[in-house]
Amino acid sequence: MNKPIAASELIIINGRVYHIGTKADELASQIFVTGDPGRVDAVANHFDNIRSKVSNREYITVTGTFRGMPVSVMSTGIGTDNNDIAVVEAHACNAIDLDTRIEKDPTNVTPLTVIRLGTSGGPQPDITIGTLAISSYALGLDNTGIAYNFPPADQVCKDLNRIAYEMITAATPDGNYYRGWLRPYSSKATPEVVEALARQAQLKGFPHAVGITASTSSFYGGQGRQIPGFPLTVNDLPDVLERLRVGDLRVVNIEMESSLLFQLLTGVGYRCGTICPVIAGRAEGTFIEPDVKAKSIERTIEVGLAAMHDLYTKDRAS
Amino acid sequence: MNKPIAASELIIINGRVYHIGTKADELASQIFVTGDPGRVDAVANHFDNIRSKVSNREYITVTGTFRGMPVSVMSTGIGTDNNDIAVVEAHACNAIDLDTRIEKDPTNVTPLTVIRLGTSGGPQPDITIGTLAISSYALGLDNTGIAYNFPPADQVCKDLNRIAYEMITAATPDGNYYRGWLRPYSSKATPEVVEALARQAQLKGFPHAVGITASTSSFYGGQGRQIPGFPLTVNDLPDVLERLRVGDLRVVNIEMESSLLFQLLTGVGYRCGTICPVIAGRAEGTFIEPDVKAKSIERTIEVGLAAMHDLYTKDRAS
Repeated sequence: MNKPIAASELIIINGRVYHIGTKADELASQIFVTGDPGRVDAVANHFDNIRSKVSNREYITVTGTFRGMPVSVMSTGIGTDNNDIAVVEAHACNAIDLDTRIEKDPTNVTPLTVIRLGTSGGPQPDITIGTLAISSYALGLDNTGIAYNFPPADQVCKDLNRIAYEMITAATPDGNYYRGWLRPYSSKATPEVVEALARQAQLKGFPHAVGITASTSSFYGGQGRQIPGFPLTVNDLPDVLERLRVGDLRVVNIEMESSLLFQLLTGVGYRCGTICPVIAGRAEGTFIEPDVKAKSIERTIEVGLAAMHDLYTKDRAS
Repeated sequence: MNKPIAASELIIINGRVYHIGTKADELASQIFVTGDPGRVDAVANHFDNIRSKVSNREYITVTGTFRGMPVSVMSTGIGTDNNDIAVVEAHACNAIDLDTRIEKDPTNVTPLTVIRLGTSGGPQPDITIGTLAISSYALGLDNTGIAYNFPPADQVCKDLNRIAYEMITAATPDGNYYRGWLRPYSSKATPEVVEALARQAQLKGFPHAVGITASTSSFYGGQGRQIPGFPLTVNDLPDVLERLRVGDLRVVNIEMESSLLFQLLTGVGYRCGTICPVIAGRAEGTFIEPDVKAKSIERTIEVGLAAMHDLYTKDRAS
C-alpha cells in the first residue's frame, strides 16, 4: 500500500497544510485564485455567506457559497513560485488524507475547478486598457512548471515552445551572457472553462479577448521593462510578444501566474482558466486610471463568478 | 539628458512605487527582507522607534532606527519574482526621482545594504535543524535573474553554473520532456556582509554554516519533493545538491530567494547577504519543532541586526 508522505515533504501542522494554512474542509471544489491579498474580500463580498477565513503569509482563503455553490477564494501573492505552493497544498487538502498522510482513493476525489482573477499588461495596441483578457494557452517564461514531468498538452503548445524560443533568442544580442538560456514552456487552459468565461463576458457586454497569456518570472526585467541600472538580456520583449503567432493565436496579455497554474492543474486532472483585465499598455507606455482599474477588476470578478456557477450547474445536471 | 521613464514601465502613484507602496523617504539605506509578512513585526520589535509603516499586497515595510542606525524591514512574499519587484522598486525609491521619473546623479546616491532573514531546508545530514546557514554564493534554479545581463561574478559562479547543469541533467531520466531545460545561474553575496554575519553568529555562539544556498522556483517540484500526482522532472534533487562541490564549497541550504537578490543587488552596485536557519532536514525527512523554529528565527534576527549595525558603524568610521 501507499506509504505516508514524510514530514519534510508535505508539512502538516495540527491538520493544516503548511503555507496556505487550511484544513481539508476549509477549501471548496470551486476555487478562485488572485495575486493580491487585498482582492480576496472584493470577491468574497459576492458570496451568500462565509464559513471560514484562514490567513498565513500572503495566503488568505475565504470559503462560503455563491448562489448555493460551495466556493473558495484564495490569494496567492505574485508569481509562479507561490502559486505552485497554492496548487500543491490545495491538491493535498483535496486528495491526501491529512491525518494519515496517505493519498485518498482517486475515484472518491472530486476534481477542483480553479479560475484565476488577475491583472495584466497588454502588448497589442488594439487590445486596449480595460479589455478582459481570457487565456486559452499560457506561454511560461518562468521555469517553475518544468520541474514537473507534464509534457505539452497539444501541438499548439509544442509549436509555441519552439517559436517563442527562436524569437526570444533572436532578440537577445550575441554578447549577452544568458543568450539562449530562457527556455519557454507552454500549457493549456481547460477549454470548457475558457468557453464559460468568454460566454459570460459576451452576455454581460464586456470587451474581451481570448488568446495566449505570457507568464513571466519578473515584473521588470522579465517583462522587458527598462529601468536605469538594470541591463536587459532580451531586447524589446513586448514587441516580440506582440509579433508572436501560432496559427491564428496571438499573445493577448502578460502576467506572472497562468503558465504554472495550467501546467499543474491540468497535469493533475483538474480544470482551470484565467481572466485578467489589461491595465498597462506596453506598446503605448500607458497605465490604467484608478477608477477604470477598479471597474475592470469588478467586471473580472462578475464574469468569473458567473462562469464558475455555470460550470457547477452543468456538472450537477450531467 | 535622461528621459523620464514611461508610466507603464515604472508605475508611480501619488509619489509611491506601485507594488511595495513606499515613498522615497520611507526606506532606509539598511534594509532587511523577509518572505513572511508575519515576520516584519518580529524584526521591527527590536527597533528603537518606528517612523513609518506601509502595507500593500504581500509587501509590508516598517522603517525606523536600531541603536541609532536608520533601518527598514520589508516582507516580500515567497519567491524570486516578488523579490525582483522589491529590489527594483527599492532601487527606484533610492536612485530615481519619483516626481520627475528621471535617474538621480549616481554620485549622490548612497548604496543600499540588504540582508535577507529567511528560512530554509537542509540537504546535508551534518548541518542539523536549527543551524544558521549563511550564504556566500547562491545557485539559482529559478530563472528570474537571467532576465538581466549581469554576467557571473567570478570563476566560482561560472564553475557552479557548469557543474550544477551537468549534475541536474544527469539526474533527469532520458524520457523526461524537460531534460536539459533547467539552466542554473549563480550569483555571489557581498563578502563583507557574509563576514559580518558569520562573525556575529560566532560571537553569539550560535551554530552556523557558510556556503552555497540553492534557490528554487518552487517549494515542491523544484526542491524535489515527491507529492502523489505530481511527477518530477529531476530525480533526487536534494541528493544532487548534497553531492555538489565547487572546490571546498558545498550547498548548505535550499530556499527560494537569494539567487535573484544577489544577482540584482550586486549587479546594481549594492551590498547583500542572506541568513536562514535550516528548518527541514531533507536528507532525513524531518521538520523542525515549533518552539525550536521560533528560537532559530529569533537568533537569525539577532545576528542580522548586529551584523547590519557593524557594517553601518564601519561605514561611518571610514
